[in-house]
Amino acid sequence: MIIVLKPKLSRKDETAVIREIRKLGYKPHIMRGVARTVIGAIGDELTHQSLESLPGMFPNAIESVMPVQKRYKFVSREAHPADSAITVLGNAIGGRKFQVMAGPCSVDSEKQLLTVAHAVKAAGATILRGGAFKPRTSPYEFQGLGLKGLKLLAKARRETGLGVITELLSEDHAEMVAEFTDIIQIGARNAQNFQLLIAAARTGKPILLKRGLSMRIEEWLLAGEYVLSNNNPNLLFCERGIRTFETYTRNTLDLSTIPIIKKESHLPIVIDPSQGAGRADLVAAMCKGAVAMGADALLIEVHPNPAEAWSDGAQQLSVALFARLMEDLKPFIAAAGRE
Amino acid sequence: MIIVLKPKLSRKDETAVIREIRKLGYKPHIMRGVARTVIGAIGDELTHQSLESLPGMFPNAIESVMPVQKRYKFVSREAHPADSAITVLGNAIGGRKFQVMAGPCSVDSEKQLLTVAHAVKAAGATILRGGAFKPRTSPYEFQGLGLKGLKLLAKARRETGLGVITELLSEDHAEMVAEFTDIIQIGARNAQNFQLLIAAARTGKPILLKRGLSMRIEEWLLAGEYVLSNNNPNLLFCERGIRTFETYTRNTLDLSTIPIIKKESHLPIVIDPSQGAGRADLVAAMCKGAVAMGADALLIEVHPNPAEAWSDGAQQLSVALFARLMEDLKPFIAAAGRE
Amino acid sequence: MIIVLKPKLSRKDETAVIREIRKLGYKPHIMRGVARTVIGAIGDELTHQSLESLPGMFPNAIESVMPVQKRYKFVSREAHPADSAITVLGNAIGGRKFQVMAGPCSVDSEKQLLTVAHAVKAAGATILRGGAFKPRTSPYEFQGLGLKGLKLLAKARRETGLGVITELLSEDHAEMVAEFTDIIQIGARNAQNFQLLIAAARTGKPILLKRGLSMRIEEWLLAGEYVLSNNNPNLLFCERGIRTFETYTRNTLDLSTIPIIKKESHLPIVIDPSQGAGRADLVAAMCKGAVAMGADALLIEVHPNPAEAWSDGAQQLSVALFARLMEDLKPFIAAAGRE
Amino acid sequence: MIIVLKPKLSRKDETAVIREIRKLGYKPHIMRGVARTVIGAIGDELTHQSLESLPGMFPNAIESVMPVQKRYKFVSREAHPADSAITVLGNAIGGRKFQVMAGPCSVDSEKQLLTVAHAVKAAGATILRGGAFKPRTSPYEFQGLGLKGLKLLAKARRETGLGVITELLSEDHAEMVAEFTDIIQIGARNAQNFQLLIAAARTGKPILLKRGLSMRIEEWLLAGEYVLSNNNPNLLFCERGIRTFETYTRNTLDLSTIPIIKKESHLPIVIDPSQGAGRADLVAAMCKGAVAMGADALLIEVHPNPAEAWSDGAQQLSVALFARLMEDLKPFIAAAGRE
Repeated sequence: MIIVLKPKLSRKDETAVIREIRKLGYKPHIMRGVARTVIGAIGDELTHQSLESLPGMFPNAIESVMPVQKRYKFVSREAHPADSAITVLGNAIGGRKFQVMAGPCSVDSEKQLLTVAHAVKAAGATILRGGAFKPRTSPYEFQGLGLKGLKLLAKARRETGLGVITELLSEDHAEMVAEFTDIIQIGARNAQNFQLLIAAARTGKPILLKRGLSMRIEEWLLAGEYVLSNNNPNLLFCERGIRTFETYTRNTLDLSTIPIIKKESHLPIVIDPSQGAGRADLVAAMCKGAVAMGADALLIEVHPNPAEAWSDGAQQLSVALFARLMEDLKPFIAAAGRE
Repeated sequence: MIIVLKPKLSRKDETAVIREIRKLGYKPHIMRGVARTVIGAIGDELTHQSLESLPGMFPNAIESVMPVQKRYKFVSREAHPADSAITVLGNAIGGRKFQVMAGPCSVDSEKQLLTVAHAVKAAGATILRGGAFKPRTSPYEFQGLGLKGLKLLAKARRETGLGVITELLSEDHAEMVAEFTDIIQIGARNAQNFQLLIAAARTGKPILLKRGLSMRIEEWLLAGEYVLSNNNPNLLFCERGIRTFETYTRNTLDLSTIPIIKKESHLPIVIDPSQGAGRADLVAAMCKGAVAMGADALLIEVHPNPAEAWSDGAQQLSVALFARLMEDLKPFIAAAGRE
Repeated sequence: MIIVLKPKLSRKDETAVIREIRKLGYKPHIMRGVARTVIGAIGDELTHQSLESLPGMFPNAIESVMPVQKRYKFVSREAHPADSAITVLGNAIGGRKFQVMAGPCSVDSEKQLLTVAHAVKAAGATILRGGAFKPRTSPYEFQGLGLKGLKLLAKARRETGLGVITELLSEDHAEMVAEFTDIIQIGARNAQNFQLLIAAARTGKPILLKRGLSMRIEEWLLAGEYVLSNNNPNLLFCERGIRTFETYTRNTLDLSTIPIIKKESHLPIVIDPSQGAGRADLVAAMCKGAVAMGADALLIEVHPNPAEAWSDGAQQLSVALFARLMEDLKPFIAAAGRE
Repeated sequence: MIIVLKPKLSRKDETAVIREIRKLGYKPHIMRGVARTVIGAIGDELTHQSLESLPGMFPNAIESVMPVQKRYKFVSREAHPADSAITVLGNAIGGRKFQVMAGPCSVDSEKQLLTVAHAVKAAGATILRGGAFKPRTSPYEFQGLGLKGLKLLAKARRETGLGVITELLSEDHAEMVAEFTDIIQIGARNAQNFQLLIAAARTGKPILLKRGLSMRIEEWLLAGEYVLSNNNPNLLFCERGIRTFETYTRNTLDLSTIPIIKKESHLPIVIDPSQGAGRADLVAAMCKGAVAMGADALLIEVHPNPAEAWSDGAQQLSVALFARLMEDLKPFIAAAGRE
């Protein structure tokens, strides 16, 4: 930790600060600069108590405290220099092969789910997504089919051989959801619901951790640290857009997270362009960018076949669009050195 | 709902959109403007299915969809024109009397808690705050004393007669926490953890709902709607700062929420300046602003007396600062027409 | 400056970094910590070249560089411990007397301006605001009356004795605008248009510098430093709301700037609640908060009297609302120890 | 425009609103919904006066006003369905050939500039970037070489045949800068300095308009409209990152602007990854993403060869890194169907 003292501080006040730094177990190292004195507090910031409350104790003596060390350990590239891959039904996410997870936003019916599952498998996806428990901004919106939805996912898994990813919303459902899914998804609104993260980690299933709407990268890595420090090494980070002032898109997809997560961590990074854009017409471009920048996988919402719903088959087009997208991605996957 | 069609749309495409609007139960009303045709979809937006997915279905026909109706009901001022007050041990929050909740960030020890409790009571606070379960960004930081902390809060309550507010972090703890507290606090990181909100609501205890770090006001009101629609009318909104680009303060305290919540809702609004600023030296000014703008209560972190820790008694000063702040607020409370 | 080196760095790389630090005129001071080595670069950060480009030069050796010193000088409280006041026609802004600047958003006509000018004077304002040059997001919107508007402001000034504040948009207009106004306003969109700041400073007139939409406090202070370092000591900071994710209000008025500017600078702070909220119904509460928190002045948009326009006199009400607001503020001004 | 009335409004108030809508030249169209009455105001929103001030006039009658029409015209894809390309010294930006603009952040010396110019040309760039006037957050930082820098750029242009892009900071310099450059750059901090935009447009030179730090897409398009409506059709949009809460990167590069600008406008889109990331180690990934997503050009900062400065040649590596990046981009350029 670096402690910057206020200018023209008396020796008495300086001594009081130094005494406290020592008391908290750090070795103080004093540097007298031109305008200010700076104290380096030497000690392991992960095991020692934080000094971030020091300015509150000495409001007239301390200007600021700056951490030097990184606060995450198990998720860090320093701790594990080689890439980690998470394997689901024989498909490694984070290896040479690029993976696609696709399916409906929520599981609505058996027919809808199976139609989409077969379609995305045919187009090359290896994992089926679909929400059985849906977090909704309003209590008056559809909250998902629950257990019935989980069973439909299991059926689609048996029929197609696709792995399954679905969201966990409640600590109390952790074991039930783990029984039916290959990857547990933690949604953006629960990304700092640490109790849920711990409950999910303890099932032993791989966890896909979406970035919270206003989560800094360091906080995201630390949320991931909750999973790994609870003895579950199988973590995937998933960027799905952050909240900014822009209103054209629902969220701002932050694709710079791809090289950043690769730099800071050994764990795979997945991009969700559907949530990121909130607009189907931007998804294809987002996917190309994600592939080119080195993402390990995509998580894409594919609309079900509405059949009787639309004479012009808007939704069939959506399944068709997904198939075309998978074709269009191929040269980019090759250019990125993936399969 | 208002549906804006793309310019120069064919009648065939227009008819397809109108047919779908009818199918979802709305009565379409067509307005042909200069540059675009607009459809008003008449029907109760709360009970009908949302039309927000329409642009996804008709990407080439629909430009945008705009809701007309408000999505919240029980929390709204329209539903309940008079102010609501929540009464805790005879003290009404939301009435004429201005209330102050104060205490340590986390419960550390019996001595610390009782010292602060007596001090804040003497200075005029009516409710004691203190965390027994602490949500921490890093798994390596102190997570709170848990049940032991709750019991200390109960002891402080008995000794001082102060009401107690403490945070609930896990659905599984809802009943246990409810047993020891007068108000259940839902923290900013769990503000859209709907399962936790429902579990808290069902205890029947008053709920203080902090605004999430990047929560729009509408989303906050809708999260509150989860409490009221689960048969718990005792809700307090608490602004504690939002996340912005500014780095001088930890968060940006959005005091405009005071007149906005008063306008949109009948429920009380509480301001937490400690989290809002993240700096003790700004708290006093924030409190004065909150009082002047019509807040119903304050939630303030007061440092414990560190006794042996500091020769200069930095922390005793903090308790002293709180007492002085309570004095300084008096003319502003009077100016605001409160007691 | 503090330079944090990467862990496990070779002595050769460390030496290269240290050599460069010396070359740039700083004295390096090395601290070997548990996980990392940190170098303190001792020297005046204001006169020496910045070290912020060092990580770009040594991407494999340096993790981060952190400045220690503040980058602003003349605007800082350190440089000038006592409060500064700016006096306009005998009224000091930043002294014991609380000041109100009020008037229309833009100068539309002689009748409109004079009506408002007399009304705001009668209600207690001492300075008349009104835009002659208007920055508009779209080129198709009204851009102001220009010189004709300036002359109307001068006429209103003569008739009422009010001081005048108006916005400067172009370097080329600096002298012309200075001829007609008592305070030059620099708008939020031009807050980092440094050429305009310099041109305005050189007129010698007091400058009111609005905070940019996404300007950090440090950047705002540094923009102010452009004025003072160009030999113009008469600067007022004006908070008018920042851009956040919230869409209920046009901007988020950051009232914490009041204690922060008071702490960091000796210059006065003015609050503009009209731009800040973008909604007339929130202005009164904002004004009360600003007064209570220690602002030196308010800048308020008052609608002109539309006379023939409305049978119900919506706009007359606005002038009336301003007069009532001025009454309502009195107890808060007294509580804040102002006149 | 759509005007949403408050619930349970009296007919008298409704009539007053309708009368005003008519007075402003719109034809009102009334829709009575379940919870609210909505008025469609039919008329050209570009030529009529805006109705956005209506809620201010009728605070008790109007809930909100929503525009229906787009506010930009000449920059819109609707006005000009085919792609536009801007040609500089025979190189079309916005055509099939992908273009790269590269060079130092600021022009420091003849040797530095010429070295970089030859290096980036050899690597395949067609346009040389370099700042002669630098907008600096602090007045104490290097502000550029001015006219001397412009002359060095002209020399580099003669020697290499590269086109030149440089920033314009002051209206007063518009003609001088235009004399020396092929493209005038308007920086992020001046993106809504409309006087500067008009002055730049009038030179007739192509304009590269960077997105402001907190500029919504619509505002960016409207700033571009200032250029086109001043009779200069040669505009390039340039995304360089927006300001968000994230602190890991200096800005958040919003690559979704590529498909959005392509959808809303016919004009080219350029990506500046150097400003976007603020970190050299993320630039390569950003560039690959930009190419894959359909950007028309890149604007990249290349470090000069410091020669005597560094034994390990950190900066030579930077020129080398640029050459390698140009190689690495080739398969992505091919995958994107460009040359």
